[in-house]
Amino acid sequence: MRNFKAGGLCYDGEKLQILDQTLLPETEKWLDCDSVSQLVDLIKRLAIRGAPAIGIAAAILTGIYAKNGATANELHRLAKILIEARPTAVNLQNYMTRLSPLFELADCSNKVIAEVENIYREDRELCSRMSMLGAGIVGKGEHILTHCNTGSLTTAGIGTAMGVILTAHLQKKDIFVWIDETRPLLQGGRLTAWECLKNNIPHKIICDSVAGMLMQQGKVHRILVGSDRIATNGDFANKIGTYQLAVLAKYHNVPFYVVAPSTTIDPDCKSGQEIPIEQRDPCEVGGVTLATAQVRWAPERSEGYNPAFDVTPRELVTGWILENGIFDREDVEKTHWWQTS
Amino acid sequence: MRNFKAGGLCYDGEKLQILDQTLLPETEKWLDCDSVSQLVDLIKRLAIRGAPAIGIAAAILTGIYAKNGATANELHRLAKILIEARPTAVNLQNYMTRLSPLFELADCSNKVIAEVENIYREDRELCSRMSMLGAGIVGKGEHILTHCNTGSLTTAGIGTAMGVILTAHLQKKDIFVWIDETRPLLQGGRLTAWECLKNNIPHKIICDSVAGMLMQQGKVHRILVGSDRIATNGDFANKIGTYQLAVLAKYHNVPFYVVAPSTTIDPDCKSGQEIPIEQRDPCEVGGVTLATAQVRWAPERSEGYNPAFDVTPRELVTGWILENGIFDREDVEKTHWWQTS
Repeated sequence: MRNFKAGGLCYDGEKLQILDQTLLPETEKWLDCDSVSQLVDLIKRLAIRGAPAIGIAAAILTGIYAKNGATANELHRLAKILIEARPTAVNLQNYMTRLSPLFELADCSNKVIAEVENIYREDRELCSRMSMLGAGIVGKGEHILTHCNTGSLTTAGIGTAMGVILTAHLQKKDIFVWIDETRPLLQGGRLTAWECLKNNIPHKIICDSVAGMLMQQGKVHRILVGSDRIATNGDFANKIGTYQLAVLAKYHNVPFYVVAPSTTIDPDCKSGQEIPIEQRDPCEVGGVTLATAQVRWAPERSEGYNPAFDVTPRELVTGWILENGIFDREDVEKTHWWQTS
Repeated sequence: MRNFKAGGLCYDGEKLQILDQTLLPETEKWLDCDSVSQLVDLIKRLAIRGAPAIGIAAAILTGIYAKNGATANELHRLAKILIEARPTAVNLQNYMTRLSPLFELADCSNKVIAEVENIYREDRELCSRMSMLGAGIVGKGEHILTHCNTGSLTTAGIGTAMGVILTAHLQKKDIFVWIDETRPLLQGGRLTAWECLKNNIPHKIICDSVAGMLMQQGKVHRILVGSDRIATNGDFANKIGTYQLAVLAKYHNVPFYVVAPSTTIDPDCKSGQEIPIEQRDPCEVGGVTLATAQVRWAPERSEGYNPAFDVTPRELVTGWILENGIFDREDVEKTHWWQTS
């Protein structure tokens, strides 16, 4: 396993390191991660996040365990624990399923490591291809609205929706980005804003309640979001708030695209109703928890309701930007549509 | 002028006091307010808020100035300054317009004071009547979603949308309230939650991005909101985020009602396009500013876009709950519809 370096993780051939996203944008701090319990904790508290990035970190850690002589049983147990750390994201599950058969083989360690390398390389390649395809449909001067964070922190490459945005920007399409702050954990206001600044992309942060008014005023030309899991019928799960953006887009005739590698498609999931939705600590709603500060503004005895994701039905989606093509609603009605192009 | 006592303000015959809403729910602190510049500051930083409450505080202060011998010119100047402190809310403007002709009269002081007393009494009465009317259409066991804060803090009486909710609760209709936290200033998560707790109304706080998903799942039976200004065609301005709630309600066939006294109607405003929308400090978006803490999570160089209100067109409204009746879309097409019942 050679050296890997991505926005949110890094492997030097020995050690896996994770950029603690809870400290961004203020501090860029890399944490050593050498145990499963550590990685589970980092996933749970969103120090590492983004469906592909989590999957790759888990794959690398599995490679390290294999190299250190873990048995097949131990590796299977480890894979199961990691998958449960973020039930909505499918890449994690996909990558573990891909590695699992290797655990039983002689020379398991080298085979796992070689496969992790493939996964890493593929994800970078998928990002580039999606981003190029997506940027192709972005018009000059567009104001693009995005939700949550989907950039280099979340994949091995340049990202999904944010990869498209960055590519369109580099193509000098003169774009402007409206960033949904994305309560309660503010991945938009903290991380997407940080990535836009790093890349000199013009942007403004908005509260999640402003998107509708901007569309009403014709100030949003396109919405691009990522996904944590896509069902075979095209329904998809993504950060809470995505569904209502899709409804608003439909009402205002704003093109609404999901950008994700085909590894985000769960072939065993027929519709969005089958996607498990992770519920998070209700306390995240009554205040804000940052690495640098914790503030509660709600009364102590008022409870919050805090689903981490929601499901957008395919009817609301203009197009699915995958690495092998841009698919429309007619396409996704075909079986195995994501394997055609 | 006798003693007045409301949720957010108080007058003991001598002194106007304002409950500092920025300190709620943690601390209940009453501030003396004896000058125009002070009241403007309290309005600007939302220590006092709610269209009727602001109007009444301004009227009381005008009464105090009149009592202390201010000239007609001084009173006119004062009225103008106060109106500009919250351009979107019309009650403030309406009450000042009502007091203005009195400034020129002999015995101005007593006449202004008597009129302030009328305004205060009327507003309490308007609240009670709206609330009773509105509660009449709330069904048993309904889950009601509300935005921002519209309770006793915002009027001289029990409130507008929240008045309906409280009345339905007191009628033992077994209701449950979803509270939009209402970023950026969190009037829902702080103040509406606090008012629900005080009145033992079952509730949960949600991020503003969750409302769509709840409607998708059939968990919202009615939406009730207040208003800062209603145009004569029925369009209305309210806290940012109201417009997109109305679109989501339309899409999901959830009844969407605005609750406001007829004093919120601006007879000079023909449509929502004429309502001035106040822009607030962009810094409110990149973090949270509470009396007890100030936290910024966005990168320093990332700017926010921060409209304080938005406009909901009448097409999206199921009904207008005023003190003299519940009006539907057909009603509001008539001229002076709010004067019929």
